[in-house]
Amino acid sequence: MGKIQNIYDNNQFYDEYKKMRDGKINANELIEIPTMKSMLPNLQGKTILDLGCGAGGMARYFIEQGAKNVYAIDISQNMINEAKQLPCKNIEYHIMAMEDIDKIDKKFDIVFSSLAFHYVEDFKTLIHNCYNLLNDNGILLFSQENPIATAIVYNENVSKHIEINNKRYYLISDYNNISKRNLDWNVKDVIKYHRNFETIINTLINEKFEVLQIKEPSASKEAIELVPKYAYQTDRPYFLFVKAQKK
Amino acid sequence: MGKIQNIYDNNQFYDEYKKMRDGKINANELIEIPTMKSMLPNLQGKTILDLGCGAGGMARYFIEQGAKNVYAIDISQNMINEAKQLPCKNIEYHIMAMEDIDKIDKKFDIVFSSLAFHYVEDFKTLIHNCYNLLNDNGILLFSQENPIATAIVYNENVSKHIEINNKRYYLISDYNNISKRNLDWNVKDVIKYHRNFETIINTLINEKFEVLQIKEPSASKEAIELVPKYAYQTDRPYFLFVKAQKK
Repeated sequence: MGKIQNIYDNNQFYDEYKKMRDGKINANELIEIPTMKSMLPNLQGKTILDLGCGAGGMARYFIEQGAKNVYAIDISQNMINEAKQLPCKNIEYHIMAMEDIDKIDKKFDIVFSSLAFHYVEDFKTLIHNCYNLLNDNGILLFSQENPIATAIVYNENVSKHIEINNKRYYLISDYNNISKRNLDWNVKDVIKYHRNFETIINTLINEKFEVLQIKEPSASKEAIELVPKYAYQTDRPYFLFVKAQKK
Repeated sequence: MGKIQNIYDNNQFYDEYKKMRDGKINANELIEIPTMKSMLPNLQGKTILDLGCGAGGMARYFIEQGAKNVYAIDISQNMINEAKQLPCKNIEYHIMAMEDIDKIDKKFDIVFSSLAFHYVEDFKTLIHNCYNLLNDNGILLFSQENPIATAIVYNENVSKHIEINNKRYYLISDYNNISKRNLDWNVKDVIKYHRNFETIINTLINEKFEVLQIKEPSASKEAIELVPKYAYQTDRPYFLFVKAQKK
């Protein structure tokens, strides 16, 4: 297995990322977060593990919604520093890689992760560890980039989409090549891991989860009014959400 | 709801289809059937409903594998006539649309369907009817065209794939437009229904199935030796297989 990536502590990446997130007019605020909120179970009195918590926005939301406490980890010192700028009772932040969560000596009612699982190479071990960290009947809820979006192996000669008669078509290749993808996003060579639906769903099932719900949202009318290009989410949704329960 | 399509009783379509299937060097024989066989539960003593049985190849296989009996339906008189040319004890053939299976007054251990569900407009009712036709803990196993393959809305100006530097890229659009697709396959305007993964998986879950396994196979080395273009199944698999259990 390769060295674990910590791209959010690359300061050039972090500055660009922060600019995008601070703007509030982005796919996180307009598509990802609303979808996540729509899939959350009742949080009243629940203990929650947040994997790849970033600046802590969802962790604080969980507490607002009545969660008992949140154990929030992120590999990035930059992100944890930012999260701690808005201190919140009952949230504990730790700098930790998702690859190391087997070292956490607690159990949780909910394991949550927003747009982080596609950074992890060993999906089977990740899901196995999530299972072990959950109480009986606990809920795993995660989002990641949609397999349709991560499949293509890019290079400088290939664009993500083409136009034919003013209609956009996205390109897809290598959907069943389950492996790493290097891409340019804020900086050169950000690494993500592409997995197809089969791998995602079967891994959950093999690790004794029952799949409860899937979402591959298009953008809302309101989001498209703010950012017209989000209409293309209907052609190729960028996100995948999965809710599963420990059996 | 539109009129139910019976394209296999269009004789021009049927002649072309029969030529393709009789050849044995096709994606059914080399990819679809081997994958289906790998996902079947133990058939010993089981009662099986086969939806869209075609020429009865799988129904006869079920009996060979020890199934007690098979109730096999197909909307096409052509296909049922062909199936009956190889009579087999314990298989009962009926000309019936998948939209009418709520009229079947029996229960089964397994409901099986090969490459037929994408012809049905009302997926929710289809799955609901499958549930009602199954005994407790019964298995639903079906294949269909993969959502990645059915998504794009074709017209005469749009090819299915393009080449860039000798590498093939498939085009995708309208993935979240869950609706009918007209395509030219043997004859003009064959109608299929595109559904995304979200719709397929959530419908099963909402109708009280537990999803057990998904497959989106690439072609085997042997299949690619016989038909080199099947290597592209790795870029964009053509089939989706789903196995689910009645809860």
